Amino acid sequence: MKLAILFGGQSFEHEISIVSATTLKEKLHDFELTYIFCDQDHTLYWIDAQKMKAQTFSSGAYRKEPTLTLVQGGFVRKKRFGSERLAVPVLNLIHGADGEDGTIAGLLDFYKISYIGPRREASVFSFDKRYTKYLAHAIGVKVLDYEVLHKHGSRDVKTPYPFIVKPSRLGSSIGVSVVNDAPELDYALDVAFEFDESVIVEPFISGVKEYNLAGFRARDTMHYSIVEEPQKSEFLDFDKKYLDFSRSATVHEADLDAATVRTLQENFQTIYGDLFEGALIRCDFFLIDNEVYLNEINPIPGSMANYLFKDFSSAITALLQDIPPANNIHVNYRYIHTISAAKGK
Amino acid sequence: MKLAILFGGQSFEHEISIVSATTLKEKLHDFELTYIFCDQDHTLYWIDAQKMKAQTFSSGAYRKEPTLTLVQGGFVRKKRFGSERLAVPVLNLIHGADGEDGTIAGLLDFYKISYIGPRREASVFSFDKRYTKYLAHAIGVKVLDYEVLHKHGSRDVKTPYPFIVKPSRLGSSIGVSVVNDAPELDYALDVAFEFDESVIVEPFISGVKEYNLAGFRARDTMHYSIVEEPQKSEFLDFDKKYLDFSRSATVHEADLDAATVRTLQENFQTIYGDLFEGALIRCDFFLIDNEVYLNEINPIPGSMANYLFKDFSSAITALLQDIPPANNIHVNYRYIHTISAAKGK
Repeated sequence: MKLAILFGGQSFEHEISIVSATTLKEKLHDFELTYIFCDQDHTLYWIDAQKMKAQTFSSGAYRKEPTLTLVQGGFVRKKRFGSERLAVPVLNLIHGADGEDGTIAGLLDFYKISYIGPRREASVFSFDKRYTKYLAHAIGVKVLDYEVLHKHGSRDVKTPYPFIVKPSRLGSSIGVSVVNDAPELDYALDVAFEFDESVIVEPFISGVKEYNLAGFRARDTMHYSIVEEPQKSEFLDFDKKYLDFSRSATVHEADLDAATVRTLQENFQTIYGDLFEGALIRCDFFLIDNEVYLNEINPIPGSMANYLFKDFSSAITALLQDIPPANNIHVNYRYIHTISAAKGK
Repeated sequence: MKLAILFGGQSFEHEISIVSATTLKEKLHDFELTYIFCDQDHTLYWIDAQKMKAQTFSSGAYRKEPTLTLVQGGFVRKKRFGSERLAVPVLNLIHGADGEDGTIAGLLDFYKISYIGPRREASVFSFDKRYTKYLAHAIGVKVLDYEVLHKHGSRDVKTPYPFIVKPSRLGSSIGVSVVNDAPELDYALDVAFEFDESVIVEPFISGVKEYNLAGFRARDTMHYSIVEEPQKSEFLDFDKKYLDFSRSATVHEADLDAATVRTLQENFQTIYGDLFEGALIRCDFFLIDNEVYLNEINPIPGSMANYLFKDFSSAITALLQDIPPANNIHVNYRYIHTISAAKGK
């Protein structure tokens, strides 16, 4: 089965995406894979499988590879004589900005290229933590209380200490701090505002139970991964997350009773709805007093959360076989014809 | 001042966009305008000003015009010898799908082309009426109660008659019906489901006062149009709206006291927030028992609601001079370098 992995992007998680892509190269070895690298200037390169290692990108050697341009239905590589067309479904593996904020979705939608990944709406609701809260409130999924601070606004936080400070629009723990008391606040906010104009403040619950569940819908059936209780110190900082993105060994299932697993799956299904069609997502939940709270939605989880699936290849195959169709509207110029005819009378 | 008008699109409102563009040609005659037509197959054409009339498009004559492709920072027209680059800010004037659903925003963001129009997030919250409700609830703006029906789900409506049925994701009254009693319901839903998988049901309030207000923010200041009380029969059907999109004469201001106008403006500002930066939008409000309710947000109003502005050219100039900057993230490969170094030890 053919599949192009699109990775890189102009994103703080650019390097993480490279790690995800090299990890999937191993995990999806039974696919006929091609690799499309989006560099930080949005030039697309067709990367040879043998060159799929981190150094190709960090050294700049990728610039010697052939570039690709977008045309309706696919990508085109210019050759000395003529051109070569690449028309295969894409796995959007660009984490963070570009990939998860709806830019790549809009781009691929415009060019009518089939893809696995969040659509524009799904991107907006998962990329910005404020909008994840809006969504959760609207569909009846519990989330922690929160406040929003703006870069040039008041730094007056009402949430009691300790609390957690996060840029509204980043993943992978970048710019996130736990604030234990007042003297730590300004620095934490300065760091978070380095990455975004708006910041979310949430209560920090020490030792809270956290559970990750990935899944997707294909042919009207929900498919769930196992539930993992991620290892953490206070929380994963960026360096640890970075390594985390190269995970490929299946993890141990969290020690949970069947009813709790079912409740997590029900919450997952409510969130997934029709919004996340076409995407394999990971939801990170908290369990507090036996109630499930949504922490965040990863619409392009690190290395596609392959380590949570017993048969990851089958999961990707099922998604590929049920990619949402493109918007096809036929314009017949009925109104212009009608009005021109009326004017002619 | 240079400005490219981008219009057409694969949208049920494709023809309306053509009318908007020809209207703006007259209204913005003091700009140095170029015209980019996106046909229903997403091919882009550079249209000569003299050919900017409806028949050029309805007859298919536009296909003889030069095509444009996208490159970083602009558009390129192939010529026999070399190529011509068009690097001017764009006014996104594609109504409905493509233009208002975030596709064009994603496309222009990817190619780093400056534009007036809703960003991806703003598109998602205004294009789908369900998400407009989510937004309004979250930011404390009143909206009518609503129900959502799905194409293959129950047709059991709890809202008392009469109510209004609308496809979730269309503008310009397409597929909208007022349902007065049970025998009318099935047909109204059949019509609405022609256009979308999901449908919104809202109470229909006969004779409700409706007010339209357009505006934008530039250089940290809100700019408002006059308030109009739109003329309507029951509501504007598509044919009337179509004509409505060619309006260019400034309308009469609604007969409202200053306090009500201020309240409408306050609601507008709350909705606009930082979400609609870069766009000139029109909010349609209801006034019920002296309370303001948001009906809908038009992030690319017909002919840019030029008829609501006393000095429309200045409005567009102000927007052009304060276009939100592109996302610029520099990747330095720090993590890959760090890890490669650690492995080398």
